[in-house]
Amino acid sequence: MKFSKFGNRFTRHTGARQLMDDLGAAMTSEEPVMMLGGGNPAHIPDVLQLLAERTREVAGKPREFRRMIADYSSPVGEDRFRASMARLLRREYGWPLGPEHIALTGGSQSGFFQLFNLLAGKFDDGSFRQILLPLTPEYVGYTDLGLAEKLFVSNRPIIEFLDDRLFKYHIDFKGLDVADDVAAICVSRPTNPTGNVLTDAEVRQLADIARARKIPLILDNAYGVPFPGIIFQSVEPVWDDNVILCMSLSKIGLPAVRTGIVVAHPDIIDAITGLNSVMSLSVSSVGPVLLHDLVETGQIINLGRDVIRPYYHTRADQALAWMHSALDGCEYFIHRPEGAFFLWLWVPEMSITCDELYQRLKKRGVFVVPGHHFFPGLDEDWSHKHECIRVSYSQQAESVHRGISIIGEEVRNACR
Amino acid sequence: MKFSKFGNRFTRHTGARQLMDDLGAAMTSEEPVMMLGGGNPAHIPDVLQLLAERTREVAGKPREFRRMIADYSSPVGEDRFRASMARLLRREYGWPLGPEHIALTGGSQSGFFQLFNLLAGKFDDGSFRQILLPLTPEYVGYTDLGLAEKLFVSNRPIIEFLDDRLFKYHIDFKGLDVADDVAAICVSRPTNPTGNVLTDAEVRQLADIARARKIPLILDNAYGVPFPGIIFQSVEPVWDDNVILCMSLSKIGLPAVRTGIVVAHPDIIDAITGLNSVMSLSVSSVGPVLLHDLVETGQIINLGRDVIRPYYHTRADQALAWMHSALDGCEYFIHRPEGAFFLWLWVPEMSITCDELYQRLKKRGVFVVPGHHFFPGLDEDWSHKHECIRVSYSQQAESVHRGISIIGEEVRNACR
Repeated sequence: MKFSKFGNRFTRHTGARQLMDDLGAAMTSEEPVMMLGGGNPAHIPDVLQLLAERTREVAGKPREFRRMIADYSSPVGEDRFRASMARLLRREYGWPLGPEHIALTGGSQSGFFQLFNLLAGKFDDGSFRQILLPLTPEYVGYTDLGLAEKLFVSNRPIIEFLDDRLFKYHIDFKGLDVADDVAAICVSRPTNPTGNVLTDAEVRQLADIARARKIPLILDNAYGVPFPGIIFQSVEPVWDDNVILCMSLSKIGLPAVRTGIVVAHPDIIDAITGLNSVMSLSVSSVGPVLLHDLVETGQIINLGRDVIRPYYHTRADQALAWMHSALDGCEYFIHRPEGAFFLWLWVPEMSITCDELYQRLKKRGVFVVPGHHFFPGLDEDWSHKHECIRVSYSQQAESVHRGISIIGEEVRNACR
Repeated sequence: MKFSKFGNRFTRHTGARQLMDDLGAAMTSEEPVMMLGGGNPAHIPDVLQLLAERTREVAGKPREFRRMIADYSSPVGEDRFRASMARLLRREYGWPLGPEHIALTGGSQSGFFQLFNLLAGKFDDGSFRQILLPLTPEYVGYTDLGLAEKLFVSNRPIIEFLDDRLFKYHIDFKGLDVADDVAAICVSRPTNPTGNVLTDAEVRQLADIARARKIPLILDNAYGVPFPGIIFQSVEPVWDDNVILCMSLSKIGLPAVRTGIVVAHPDIIDAITGLNSVMSLSVSSVGPVLLHDLVETGQIINLGRDVIRPYYHTRADQALAWMHSALDGCEYFIHRPEGAFFLWLWVPEMSITCDELYQRLKKRGVFVVPGHHFFPGLDEDWSHKHECIRVSYSQQAESVHRGISIIGEEVRNACR
């Protein structure tokens, strides 16, 4: 079958696609697997119970239930939820915004497809503009989102070595070239895959650069503050009308519901409304109705702070201890886990690439993500790209523990 | 703010967008409005009750509940639902298919965005291919879906006059030019906006033409058989591996849940999997889990036949009687209501365009859709395009009745 340019571009079997197929196959495999690969959040009992109660409550109120399933929302997303979200952000952080600053999308990923292709790519005047990722490693999901090739330009980080075989990436501001054809700057905070949390100073500096250059700063807040709040230290949530803040209900525990939230200048919101309306008529109201009361009362922030964050913080400490123990005696480094739910393992002296390590681990039933996928837009040859893997610690503790032990064995084999 | 080519194309304020904004404003208006405009399905009490019960049931079973909200599905859509759907279609209609023939999308509209742009538009070899709509009026939602301009080429219908001021559109097969640059043929059955149901012979002929030309036939079955089954006569559901059958859970009563279903050759399914995965990671599992048991048992077909179809059939008869009474003495025609939930009113002797009629009705609180939006790809000047309106009869009977009375008054005014 012959496909269009668009078809060929979006259906090519990229590394990311291969990875997803592997993960999919693993999920349905008869063999026991240790799933340290995907981005699925944990099943936190208190959260699931709360959501199940709320679901029963909605099902028992005909008007709420109709709102959740039986009426198309406006293309910009369910209005009551957007109004409550605006009130919450205004009340908690003093951000000067209303519902006109908030759009919903069918998950964060759809939002990024829309935003990146709206702001960058080919322009009517013949110019071509790019999205700048000021720090790689950065989220693999961005990689193939461009309707045009070469949508991203990106930078190496500065590496700060810390105690206890930990390290931290920083933005190399001196090496940051915000060329004229940069349409927007984008960072995830916490960073998927590394668990890095950009410092408040770094974010402020990026925001200043963006404002001075009259381009938006896109903050991918899938794991961050104000919710789901998976950041293990105190940091400032950031928004102003030059920032496009992207949030999601997935990491609260609703990945199968597909609700993304974009907080931005009304011009951006208006564009997303148009895109939603043409590309999908409207977005789901399931997440907005299920979580409305939590947003209206502000309880969604407490849920992150009191339940979700402590849960993952404990899991992070545990996974880190297991990893140190599994790799004891090797030459390795781990990015300091500051948020999200991944360990980013760096083994500089492996005799194989991380892709080969991934293959060997897969054979032993352990699924991780090889690090070289996480450098979208960084075309230069840099050995570091092939020396890292992403290890999720969100799944069952026993499985994570066993998986990390096997990672230890395979890394040892690869360092001999 | 400067947007890309894609951004400008998909955010321009088209007629369709204006319409959606009007409908949105009407929905939140303080004034009472008669909403005969949108495509929202009716709130059928038996259906809502069944769905609410099912929702409570899922919320009470932790494993089902996790499946519904807490785990990403595979990018092709929730596997268990796809398997049940394949079994159902195989069992009921003998179609030779399995789960590998079924993909889910975030609503039908997203599916059409993917399919049209996958099959048509610009090709790597420099060629340009189009989607042929063999019969207009056709669904307004297709209009702006092309990443490239001029994605559609379409045809006038043959008009058959029937008794009682009814008429029916037929495909003009003699005038049908399936040029070399046609990538696929697409029809909705029942047709939105007219309520026309292509005859079995017409569909067979289209399928034959498509197969002979080695291009797929896309059947938009948002309202049709096997479900939701809103067709008021007996017709044959059609599928073979050259047909791309698009279904939806919306018109069963779940428009806010956003589940589209594509039944097609595995090559197409594989492409949709890739598109889903890049553009949105995965699709929602809410619809698939809520409706799984109905699909597994086949009850979804009974629900259409015994509850949904009779409901709309009664509403169609009622609306038709009201329209005849409101227009008594005028020169008008109504497309025979054969399915979906719209009356398509044709007033050949109006002194104003349907757009002006729409404006006048809007001022009186009655929302309809002016007919000229429903001719995607038909660029030629044809007065018929400006002589029709689409009137939904899915909303509350009293409101539909009052709305139709006012339509009668305004049409009379416009025919003097």
